[in-house]
Amino acid sequence: MDSSEALGHHISGFVDGEGNFTIAVFKQRESRLGYGVHVMFVVGQAEREILELTRQILGCGRVHLRHQYNKDGFKRMPQFELRIQSHKDCLLKLIPFFDKYELLTKKKNDYLLWKTTVQMVARGEHLTRKGLLKIIEIKKKMEQGRSKKGRKSVPIDFIGRHNQLPILENWFKE
Amino acid sequence: MDSSEALGHHISGFVDGEGNFTIAVFKQRESRLGYGVHVMFVVGQAEREILELTRQILGCGRVHLRHQYNKDGFKRMPQFELRIQSHKDCLLKLIPFFDKYELLTKKKNDYLLWKTTVQMVARGEHLTRKGLLKIIEIKKKMEQGRSKKGRKSVPIDFIGRHNQLPILENWFKE
Repeated sequence: MDSSEALGHHISGFVDGEGNFTIAVFKQRESRLGYGVHVMFVVGQAEREILELTRQILGCGRVHLRHQYNKDGFKRMPQFELRIQSHKDCLLKLIPFFDKYELLTKKKNDYLLWKTTVQMVARGEHLTRKGLLKIIEIKKKMEQGRSKKGRKSVPIDFIGRHNQLPILENWFKE
Repeated sequence: MDSSEALGHHISGFVDGEGNFTIAVFKQRESRLGYGVHVMFVVGQAEREILELTRQILGCGRVHLRHQYNKDGFKRMPQFELRIQSHKDCLLKLIPFFDKYELLTKKKNDYLLWKTTVQMVARGEHLTRKGLLKIIEIKKKMEQGRSKKGRKSVPIDFIGRHNQLPILENWFKE
């Protein structure tokens, strides 16, 4: 058996447990609609090595150190994160990988919705009102069924300033 | 590529993220030394299906529902656990599986120490004082480097009554 194939399946299994496909909609003054869309893939783990290996297999991303604190302020074990934030890498590296080495948990649904979004952004559809609303709907769908902690109380994430988004909220009412 | 091979690697990757190999030493009146040794393999996940699939691939174990509560008493999302508690299954099914589909994280060290214990128990070495002490040393080694939450304050687990073990503690002093 080809060892790179074996590694591909192994990493896919690891992501099934530890990976996250995320979409963020955020305020962006310079864009026509006032909002930007950001896609990201994250895998967290206490151990750096497996994330470096995952990065190598996927051919992109960067491993970051993330210090976490408990409620009582005590530092927890260091946590590492592999983050892939480049839209190009998501489109050209992650999608071919996860189409080949399929996920087996419900995370696959998240992946497929995320993939749709990545492809919409590639076609510039997030720059249209219709496209942006569709992406927000996708994002809501991905958040359904998650634990309260993981679910957002508002339909959209904000990168930078964490304000309410009155304009978008009006859109929903129309 | 053989799809059962692919599944094997996928499940190994999943276990690299979510699995746990554990050893428990507990009071057992009927045994000569007064202590028994128990080996177990556990994988936890919010989703039952992937655990049922893992069970199928490994050819043993049972999926249990585990309700968890937050500190404030609120029920968290249900959590499922695949547990393999039979020593025979650990020896004859898990060891061949994880020897073939190798783990890639530091969990592999845990697995190798656990495997040594399973094989020692199969040879009845846990029934000797020397063997039992070696198993306790292995267990301590596995707990080193884990987060405080995962680490035990005493060198041994107790199934049933959670008492101190004065006899064993004296053994360490010798």
